[in-house]
Order: sequence, then structure tokens, then C-alpha cells
Amino acid sequence: MSNESVMPTLREFVIERDWGQFHSAANLAKSISIESGELLECFQWNDEARVERVKAELADVLTYAYLLADRIGVDPNEIVLEKLQETRTKYPVEKARGRSTKYDRL
Amino acid sequence: MSNESVMPTLREFVIERDWGQFHSAANLAKSISIESGELLECFQWNDEARVERVKAELADVLTYAYLLADRIGVDPNEIVLEKLQETRTKYPVEKARGRSTKYDRL
Amino acid sequence: MSNESVMPTLREFVIERDWGQFHSAANLAKSISIESGELLECFQWNDEARVERVKAELADVLTYAYLLADRIGVDPNEIVLEKLQETRTKYPVEKARGRSTKYDRL
Amino acid sequence: MSNESVMPTLREFVIERDWGQFHSAANLAKSISIESGELLECFQWNDEARVERVKAELADVLTYAYLLADRIGVDPNEIVLEKLQETRTKYPVEKARGRSTKYDRL
Repeated sequence: MSNESVMPTLREFVIERDWGQFHSAANLAKSISIESGELLECFQWNDEARVERVKAELADVLTYAYLLADRIGVDPNEIVLEKLQETRTKYPVEKARGRSTKYDRL
Repeated sequence: MSNESVMPTLREFVIERDWGQFHSAANLAKSISIESGELLECFQWNDEARVERVKAELADVLTYAYLLADRIGVDPNEIVLEKLQETRTKYPVEKARGRSTKYDRL
Repeated sequence: MSNESVMPTLREFVIERDWGQFHSAANLAKSISIESGELLECFQWNDEARVERVKAELADVLTYAYLLADRIGVDPNEIVLEKLQETRTKYPVEKARGRSTKYDRL
Repeated sequence: MSNESVMPTLREFVIERDWGQFHSAANLAKSISIESGELLECFQWNDEARVERVKAELADVLTYAYLLADRIGVDPNEIVLEKLQETRTKYPVEKARGRSTKYDRL
């Protein structure tokens, strides 16, 4: 499913409720952190979690992430691919394979 | 740009580095929280932030969010739209318009 | 070591730098989230972490938490003890012993 | 109020419920992030928040921060003062006064 189909739906949802006034970039960044905390709560005491719960919390993170992308005028998928290009350089396959070490200590 | 074009690229990036072993759902949820903190740091002391910096941090949040979606076998856009359907019910236009009040106090 | 000995030192540090202007309750709450993310990063890919690193990141979380307590005019230790009293009621020993279940499902 | 009076009370609370088994350093770090998100939620859409609510959420952050300090065998106040010493060096008064700039760009 393409982002093109999601963004107009999200925008309409926000416009209908006149919520754009609350969606400053700063408030959306806070919202992403808040929802990430709720997502993390699924795994607070152990590594297993019900998929349905994870799905619902992840959806909240993604929703605010999409809204922030829209607010700053970028496409979510494009910035993911752009950043991946940088990460490829930081973590060349031959050095990074099978290791979770941070790039500055590789 | 469609998710179909991003997910295969992300998957290939991970496979090449043999990083799937680190990407448990729990570790990806932690990673989303960590990157959300870095995104929030753009707005730590005021509400203005350089777009380039926000874009880079948001890309990190999205990348881990996409990887988690993939890990639990769901499509990012689909779960956003599904959740939006629920949110519509919690926040009917006539009650929620122009208000940032949480649904349980609307 | 008592909080009485820490708070005056923290306050003096802030006053010398004229940083009180940045320390609104909202900015301090953001700062706590940001530093919590850095603390969590110690455990991003596994449950073991170097104590020195954990200590340094935990100190940052605590510093902002103390500053926020001071900002809203409460004593850190007192609010911990007060909240513990509530938690005791939510999690009675006989029900909660040996279980990580949330109170609303106990 | 001194930490000496809080730590034994917290420890007893945990022992009575046999919760030490859940309190790995990693789980406590996650818990601090989760509670920080709830604290941040007080300021999600604006900078004003009810003190009672902030106090309750801050108490949760502090509780887990104290438990983590105890878990890794350090005193909360001592590590705050130790870290402050480092921060003083990074942010000398004459350079940092009245500025929220990060030390590496001062």
C-alpha cells in the first residue's frame, strides 16, 4: 500500500477536527516519544508481547511520524531510503556483518 | 512512494549485514524509543528546529518502525488506517473539533 | 547523602549559567525523556551494559528529574514515598507477589 | 529528606512483592523510558500542566531511577554530583551563561 493513499486520509482526518493548530513539529515530536513509551510498555517486563497490542501502539507511533513528515514537507519513505544510504556508508557490509557495534567503534 | 518499494530495500540491508538476529520485536521497540528521544532533542529548548536535523532523526524512527512492522508481519500503512478508524470513533468530529482534550474527558 | 545537599548545588549551577530561563517544566520533562532514551541505548541490543555508562546516563535522568521537582516545588524523596503509598494499595502483597501483571489485571 | 530514608523503604516494598526478579537493569531502564513518556504526556499539546499530575508521573520516573541506582550499586545523589562536576567542565560559566547551546557548539 502506498503512502499516497494514507497521507490524504490522515490529512482529512486532521482537517475535519481542526487539529492542525495542535500539530506543530515540536508537539508531534513529543507525541512520537509518548507513543514510543506506550509501545515499549508492551515489552516492559519481558520480551514477549501480544501482537495485537504491539500493532496498535506501533500504529500510533507511525501516525504521528507520518504527520510530522507531512508537517515538515517530506515523504516518509523517501527519507527512510535517503537515510539508509548514509547508514550503508557508516556500516559497510564487511565491517558490520553480524555485529551490533556502533559505527564509531567498528 | 509505496511501502512496497521500501520494505524490500530495508530487508536486503538487514540481510546483507546479518542483523536480523538483533531485531527482536523488543529490541526494535527499544530502538524506536531511543530514536524518538533523539528526535525530541531537536526541540529540547525551543520549538524551532532545523528541518534537516528533524528529517534525519525522523527517518531513524520510521526505519525502526518499518522494521518492527515487518517483524510482526503487518503493513505500516494498513495499521495506520486501521487505527485511524478506531480513533474516528473515539473522537467524533462534532465533539473533538478544535479541542486537544483526551477522548475520556471529551 | 541527603537531597538537601544536592539541591542547593544544582540550583547554584543553574543560576551561575542563567539557565533557569530554559528550565520550564515542559522543557525539563522533554529533557528527562531525551536522557531516558540515552540510558535505554545502553541496553539497545542486549541486557548487559557497562556500569560506568549506565551510571552516567542515569545521572542525567536524575539531574533533570531533580530540577523538575524543584521547579514545581516538591521534594524528590517525598513524592517517591507518597506515590509508593498509592502503589501499595494498587498492588497488595498477597495479590502482587511474584507477578509482573499490571494492577488492572491482577 | 535523605535518600537513606527512601532506599530502605523502596527495597522493602520490592522484597515484600518478590519483584526483584523483574528488576534487571535493562527492565528498569525501559521502565524509566516508559514513565518519562507518561510525564511528557502532561505537556503533549501545551506547556501548562496540572502540578498534581506532573508530580505523580515524576514520582514514577524517580522511583525507577532510584531502583536502577540501587541495582547497579550507586547512590542517586552522589552520581548527580559527580556528573555535575563533568558538566561544569563542559559548560564553563563564561561560555555557557544565558545560552542553551550544546557544549560541542559553544
